[in-house]
Amino acid sequence: MSDRSSPRTIPEPSDAAAAVLLTPGPLTTSAATRRAMLRDWGSRNADFIALTARLRARLTELANAADDHACVPIQGSGTFAVEAMIGTLVPADGKLLIPVNGAYGKRMEKICGVIGRPFRVIESPENRPVEPDAIDAALAADPSISHVAAIHCETTSGVLNPLARIAAVVAGRSRALLVDAMSTFGALAIDARECPFEALAASANKCIEGVPGVGFVLARREALAARAGNAPSLSLDLHDQWRGLEANGQWRFTPPTHVLAAFDAALDQLDAEGGPAGRLARYSDNCRRLVAGMRALGFETLLDDADQAPIIVTFMTPGDPNFDFTRFYDSLHGRGYVIYPGKITEADTFRIGCIGAIGAAEIDGALAAIEATLDDMAVRDRGPG
Amino acid sequence: MSDRSSPRTIPEPSDAAAAVLLTPGPLTTSAATRRAMLRDWGSRNADFIALTARLRARLTELANAADDHACVPIQGSGTFAVEAMIGTLVPADGKLLIPVNGAYGKRMEKICGVIGRPFRVIESPENRPVEPDAIDAALAADPSISHVAAIHCETTSGVLNPLARIAAVVAGRSRALLVDAMSTFGALAIDARECPFEALAASANKCIEGVPGVGFVLARREALAARAGNAPSLSLDLHDQWRGLEANGQWRFTPPTHVLAAFDAALDQLDAEGGPAGRLARYSDNCRRLVAGMRALGFETLLDDADQAPIIVTFMTPGDPNFDFTRFYDSLHGRGYVIYPGKITEADTFRIGCIGAIGAAEIDGALAAIEATLDDMAVRDRGPG
Repeated sequence: MSDRSSPRTIPEPSDAAAAVLLTPGPLTTSAATRRAMLRDWGSRNADFIALTARLRARLTELANAADDHACVPIQGSGTFAVEAMIGTLVPADGKLLIPVNGAYGKRMEKICGVIGRPFRVIESPENRPVEPDAIDAALAADPSISHVAAIHCETTSGVLNPLARIAAVVAGRSRALLVDAMSTFGALAIDARECPFEALAASANKCIEGVPGVGFVLARREALAARAGNAPSLSLDLHDQWRGLEANGQWRFTPPTHVLAAFDAALDQLDAEGGPAGRLARYSDNCRRLVAGMRALGFETLLDDADQAPIIVTFMTPGDPNFDFTRFYDSLHGRGYVIYPGKITEADTFRIGCIGAIGAAEIDGALAAIEATLDDMAVRDRGPG
Repeated sequence: MSDRSSPRTIPEPSDAAAAVLLTPGPLTTSAATRRAMLRDWGSRNADFIALTARLRARLTELANAADDHACVPIQGSGTFAVEAMIGTLVPADGKLLIPVNGAYGKRMEKICGVIGRPFRVIESPENRPVEPDAIDAALAADPSISHVAAIHCETTSGVLNPLARIAAVVAGRSRALLVDAMSTFGALAIDARECPFEALAASANKCIEGVPGVGFVLARREALAARAGNAPSLSLDLHDQWRGLEANGQWRFTPPTHVLAAFDAALDQLDAEGGPAGRLARYSDNCRRLVAGMRALGFETLLDDADQAPIIVTFMTPGDPNFDFTRFYDSLHGRGYVIYPGKITEADTFRIGCIGAIGAAEIDGALAAIEATLDDMAVRDRGPG
């Protein structure tokens, strides 16, 4: 085929088409990450086996989890990883306690219902962190609960749940903790030695700033070993996936090779930024700049600042009758910025993300675009209705 | 972030590292397909919704299936799509007949066992096509069989199964057909009007020459509609995925945006090549050239030519004691060609693929590399041992 011998220098598609994504993912990635997808890989070849091993080791290391945990990557979106984690690790005669303060907790409920895992829910308001004391009381009251779920940041609202305190409660009651760290892993520090977890699920394309298409679970090797044949799915069986990877370094089923190469490149960039601490500093700056700028424009945030994770911010929809969300969204998109609709059920809101390969310039640009759009729409009252 | 404003002209990674992949996938893709991944997409944005709709329509059209079928893309590898197809469409009180002549039939057996779907197997030799008469007899004998599986090309050996005749038998007995067309769709013609199927599963990164990370199922809309709540998985529930896509054009869970953009670009190139007929012509040329060249070097094929699909060819391992497969493989890789180990259980073999963005130059190059390697290894007797 002639294009294998095409020139080595390839123009990148115009950035006019590619807006800045101020979303909880897929998010804006760096050109270096995307360029890593320009090469094909044989998935059973030594170089790709080495790439997979390197990725697994790096991800485990990020959580200081190499002593007891293994990284099991899994094809698909973050939800695939969460379903694989629950389906593989919670036995059919176990029970998962799910503290719910947003859509991702509800999704875990739905997963348990579909795959046939007993569960119990503690529901709390979407604009507040979950309460470790309520978890403690539920564990004291119900000895049949074997596992507890924790969602580190509920991107439904952007609220930060108190993971360390939840982990302490769960360990104190000798239960196993399953963490959904989808939108925090790689930026907010999680140390397996201080925050004991049986498993933690996350994705390539949140704070690690890879592209979407693969998730992973860091799971205690002992727990994985004990759960052969427990998963109600072949594709989403973490035990089988782990055994396959350990046996010969190869994936059981075709891996998304280009996505994984981008993931590896994204981890290089995370290292270069100083690891999670460096990345958190940038995201925290993004978040502070965004919230200050939006408040200066008259907007209000849903959450108290103390409960806000520097991941995604929920703003109250302006009460001004001239405000129309679709027009607002489209106008911002026309100016090169993609924001996100609201997801909470209790109030009229929209969301703006702080994560991805973005910094002060992108936040300032978004704020300018928002100001110009509000002027165009003649929205004077930006407080909630 | 400074690299958003980096120069528009980006060097492609050296092809020295990227060998020609003569495998059943991940396979060699074109530079145009890989370049389509250089842009980020907001997955809930209008432009990405349009891309998803276009992809779904194009894939349905490729099988002339727009009248009755819908395309439901699903994140992950081809196996994820096959598991989603079986889990969603075969009811728990149904039964799947699986004619097995290789590893992919066995994998369907395994899926049914894990997800709890009754099944029956007809096993036949790996080097022969499955027998429609045996399927007919099984259907006559067991009225509880609701569905029949057919694997179009079993890449275990490369054998072409008689899909049209199987479809006729299944329709004649009023059962539903589930096709695994993973390694043929996009090259070997499949017309829903002539070859009735309830569903057909395939992947982006076989004959359509996209990158791995997404599969899809073309399913009869009536069957999808009847199977709400049937799937034993949330992530792999085709009914729910379909309903979500139909409702607002968006994916339920994060789609692999870059992989899908590459898929769309790959479909453009399929069109430009004259659709499946044009692609089949190239693959058939590749296959003929490969087999002729290998026979000239003294190798023997596993299959009779009449049973060989132009997808991947199984060659008998030479009997010469100087032949060592690992050395052979590594030497070919060093020369820029990745081949594939054998997968059949009954004979010592290896495989070379004919699909991907490759043509006569790559096949001739591979043959020259094989000849040079055999000379290096002093393998004189290339016939089977």
